[in-house]
Amino acid sequence: MQIRTDLAMESQALSSGPEGVACSRFQRGAVEEIYVRVETEEAAKALEKDRGAYITLSHPALSRLDTEERKEIIQSLAQVVRQLTPESGDILVAGLGNRHMTADSLGSRVVEDLLITRHMKEVTGDEIKSRLRGVCGIAPGVLGVTGMETAEMIRGIVEHVRPAAVIAIDALAARESSRIGSTIQVTDTGIRPGSGVGNHRAGLNRHTLGVPVIAVGVPMVVYASVIARDALSLLFRDMDMPEEEHAQAMDSLVERITRHGLGDLVVTPREVDELVGRVARLLADGLNLALQPGLSLEEIQYLSHDGP
Amino acid sequence: MQIRTDLAMESQALSSGPEGVACSRFQRGAVEEIYVRVETEEAAKALEKDRGAYITLSHPALSRLDTEERKEIIQSLAQVVRQLTPESGDILVAGLGNRHMTADSLGSRVVEDLLITRHMKEVTGDEIKSRLRGVCGIAPGVLGVTGMETAEMIRGIVEHVRPAAVIAIDALAARESSRIGSTIQVTDTGIRPGSGVGNHRAGLNRHTLGVPVIAVGVPMVVYASVIARDALSLLFRDMDMPEEEHAQAMDSLVERITRHGLGDLVVTPREVDELVGRVARLLADGLNLALQPGLSLEEIQYLSHDGP
Amino acid sequence: MQIRTDLAMESQALSSGPEGVACSRFQRGAVEEIYVRVETEEAAKALEKDRGAYITLSHPALSRLDTEERKEIIQSLAQVVRQLTPESGDILVAGLGNRHMTADSLGSRVVEDLLITRHMKEVTGDEIKSRLRGVCGIAPGVLGVTGMETAEMIRGIVEHVRPAAVIAIDALAARESSRIGSTIQVTDTGIRPGSGVGNHRAGLNRHTLGVPVIAVGVPMVVYASVIARDALSLLFRDMDMPEEEHAQAMDSLVERITRHGLGDLVVTPREVDELVGRVARLLADGLNLALQPGLSLEEIQYLSHDGP
Amino acid sequence: MQIRTDLAMESQALSSGPEGVACSRFQRGAVEEIYVRVETEEAAKALEKDRGAYITLSHPALSRLDTEERKEIIQSLAQVVRQLTPESGDILVAGLGNRHMTADSLGSRVVEDLLITRHMKEVTGDEIKSRLRGVCGIAPGVLGVTGMETAEMIRGIVEHVRPAAVIAIDALAARESSRIGSTIQVTDTGIRPGSGVGNHRAGLNRHTLGVPVIAVGVPMVVYASVIARDALSLLFRDMDMPEEEHAQAMDSLVERITRHGLGDLVVTPREVDELVGRVARLLADGLNLALQPGLSLEEIQYLSHDGP
Repeated sequence: MQIRTDLAMESQALSSGPEGVACSRFQRGAVEEIYVRVETEEAAKALEKDRGAYITLSHPALSRLDTEERKEIIQSLAQVVRQLTPESGDILVAGLGNRHMTADSLGSRVVEDLLITRHMKEVTGDEIKSRLRGVCGIAPGVLGVTGMETAEMIRGIVEHVRPAAVIAIDALAARESSRIGSTIQVTDTGIRPGSGVGNHRAGLNRHTLGVPVIAVGVPMVVYASVIARDALSLLFRDMDMPEEEHAQAMDSLVERITRHGLGDLVVTPREVDELVGRVARLLADGLNLALQPGLSLEEIQYLSHDGP
Repeated sequence: MQIRTDLAMESQALSSGPEGVACSRFQRGAVEEIYVRVETEEAAKALEKDRGAYITLSHPALSRLDTEERKEIIQSLAQVVRQLTPESGDILVAGLGNRHMTADSLGSRVVEDLLITRHMKEVTGDEIKSRLRGVCGIAPGVLGVTGMETAEMIRGIVEHVRPAAVIAIDALAARESSRIGSTIQVTDTGIRPGSGVGNHRAGLNRHTLGVPVIAVGVPMVVYASVIARDALSLLFRDMDMPEEEHAQAMDSLVERITRHGLGDLVVTPREVDELVGRVARLLADGLNLALQPGLSLEEIQYLSHDGP
Repeated sequence: MQIRTDLAMESQALSSGPEGVACSRFQRGAVEEIYVRVETEEAAKALEKDRGAYITLSHPALSRLDTEERKEIIQSLAQVVRQLTPESGDILVAGLGNRHMTADSLGSRVVEDLLITRHMKEVTGDEIKSRLRGVCGIAPGVLGVTGMETAEMIRGIVEHVRPAAVIAIDALAARESSRIGSTIQVTDTGIRPGSGVGNHRAGLNRHTLGVPVIAVGVPMVVYASVIARDALSLLFRDMDMPEEEHAQAMDSLVERITRHGLGDLVVTPREVDELVGRVARLLADGLNLALQPGLSLEEIQYLSHDGP
Repeated sequence: MQIRTDLAMESQALSSGPEGVACSRFQRGAVEEIYVRVETEEAAKALEKDRGAYITLSHPALSRLDTEERKEIIQSLAQVVRQLTPESGDILVAGLGNRHMTADSLGSRVVEDLLITRHMKEVTGDEIKSRLRGVCGIAPGVLGVTGMETAEMIRGIVEHVRPAAVIAIDALAARESSRIGSTIQVTDTGIRPGSGVGNHRAGLNRHTLGVPVIAVGVPMVVYASVIARDALSLLFRDMDMPEEEHAQAMDSLVERITRHGLGDLVVTPREVDELVGRVARLLADGLNLALQPGLSLEEIQYLSHDGP
């Protein structure tokens, strides 16, 4: 079954416990944390994921947290991001995806909610500003809208703005529909070509940009083939079909679906707009906390664009 | 197979040629016109559609028309709408659905593109205005956003504004994914409870509003169960499964999917935002032409809100 | 000087201490509260404001509050609104103005940020919902966009939804540019014809709607004539012009400006979009607190649409 | 009187017929074309405009054109842009300004309406695409939102994308309120630091970007000081004040206004949202025609994003 996923934790090869992959899992209250480290090239090939660290924070409903849970997830996210990010220097946050397609608009919405500070530092005389870390942000838009590869644009900007690192935010595609809006993946491998809801053609990583690239993403869609497979699994369970035939039927099915063009349809929850809005705010809060260790949460809210 | 569709032409009972239903079909170039008239209560029950006329205009890609095709569809749509609408008196156009959910925003976008004239007629001294028919428009929003049933609100407005008829615009759910963005349905039966992408709870029709209600809709989603069924059909064809077992397996599957909550996921094309924008403009052009027979297309464009 | 203002506290006749007007003023920290009660018909005529209570809460910068100040203003606003609103029964919140014109979009943005609950009450089994007061909301749009008077639409909806009261939110025009984004006016007189940024033609009050109408507004524009007058005042102060000539020159000026069409230009701060967004959120928080006395602030945030 | 204007044709020094400036004027129907060529450094200083060509197309109401007038202006604009633009090579269109502030959103809206083609050329097999010129577009956002100078970002992108020229679109500030929405300025001098509604800090020109920069702009605001001055002029005319005192009073006034912070208020027409939308579409049509000489207007509409 070659159903694409952007989550390392969903890689099918993972279940067989391949060599070259370190994997650990913690449960803290309702939040599950999974660490996957892809250590060798062979493992990278098997998992179809680049070498590096993949950390996921999962909660059944990231958009329906109570106040306490929300605070915990923001702090966990801030901690994970801080571990992967250089301690000083400006940070460029790049919101990937298409702002006009709801399920793909996560990146641009996070940038809108982010505390942008790089231009404030020049202003003198304000005590709070001396404690700011320089953060700048851009949501460059997708190839179909700009005519330019996102990677081309960001590389150009990086060369002039010279940040210490890039944090790229993107809406992901998952293999399980239950992952939609419920899992945050943070990785130091950057963005892999062909990933994301928008299927970015070129990758964004330390190699292409010349600085560390941390990618933060949340699944917002699954592909139509996922639904077909889930449906079939339910059916087979009912039919007591032998495991082996089962797998064959599945392969045959996915191949057929792709051939009939159903594969280009995406599946989202009906209330995806509300979901994206809430998750964007959650990510922005976590990033603000990670990137502004000199500020309290209240000071961040006071300074930030849409708040308090 | 109880997969819901808002298109009368997709009703499964139709294929058996039931009594009480008149059906005809024309092909004009790339455009297919289908007329379905549900004439008896029995037929209405069998088709799960109210008694009345259902006219569909279909083209493989309503969002990718060339100039000539586009003009023809606008004129066909205008003609169909005109046949079902009273010849004089103000018209209230109601854009149903949720403007913040892309696939459900068709109705509110059409109202934005519509030539609104009811308030202009008072202004004297302008020759063009004497030829205007009074059109007013509202996109009241969905129950989850307003706390009020759309039908409640529109009924209240109708009693005060006293239009000769209501035209309700809505994004529909279809049974075939190929219908997304390719079929316009116009009906004099209004909006049936539980229909549309947003699953409106109360109906809008002559009985509830006291004036004729013409509904105009275009499918923008199919439900996840459709994809499951399509996938299964492909598979069964491959497996040479007997027709009868086939049907049983299908029923079993749909029931399972609904039970596992997959049924609440909706399937849309990836570029649904662009699709909705183009289709909204097409419908607005057709409605403007239908409702303003005293104006040329150029005068409509000159007066209308967004352009040219 | 006939420069229009929607704030009772700015009425010029007020300074002469007219009969039939009770006026009091409190300063609490940085927040100034002014109560104006117009008690007689003569006073109403002199002030060009309807009989009733007008309460203003002012702070130099409502969009730049620190956390403590913000909490205080929300609580003061909630208290004022609660005093003027019936204790039980559903509330309809009407967001007036044009969502597509930034300075006039305050009303529709408040409705978007509001906790809408009227439709939730039916859902059983959830303890929190038993403590909800029914709130519904609509942003009907302006005459130029809908072709219908806002008052017509709201009257129709009120007759069907039967709320205990209507709260109308509107962007106001002020006489002093320093009032933009710095003063919240709450009144039990409803909306006066010709008021607001959009110059609503018909009024919304207990007489026209049949239920109490509380209006909440914040100035977002001044008219171009205000700037001309302010400029002239600065100049005259410099020229030592006698008080009397001063007044004559002013009158002459305002008349001239109106005649030359400058009067239709509106003056806003450059960053009006950010200002409207922040003030809308502040008003929504205050209204949520006023209308949901059974809930804590945290519960409101948990339930509300865009938050927490 | 140091009231800022972005229009060369409004430069006060122009009226005295300075050396080093060539100026000509044509009237074609309702459209006035003015050519200003600033030829020497001295003239550039006197006019506060860089050396180069400034062409304006004016019509009393660019947002209320009839079909014929509209077509003529599009063609005139296309011709002017084509004269200043290299004949071959990709073009990068940069929409300057803040998309969230209506009066400053012209640039980003033009980019949204533009036919973006650079990425299409790779797709083979489609005859129409062989006739396309490569156009890419970006609306990078303002310093306060991104934390980066627009010039920094565009320079970086230019170095990677290597267009033959940049066309920068911007909302302008004018000296006369009658210029709002009525004048298109095209210049080969690029964007001057401190110009535009958003007061860009760094310039965009051949020197900073390394490729020719054509700037296209339309005034969308005047500053509050303009209104004060216009008001005063009306008054002085009435008072028969001697010319000399007049000028002194004016200077004193402008200085005072700036000191009192009124200068940061901007003045726009009430319906600025509709105005920006219509003008953006007009500019996009003109640019599409200029940049795609191989296509007919109908082909452009067929291919373009929001149309036809």
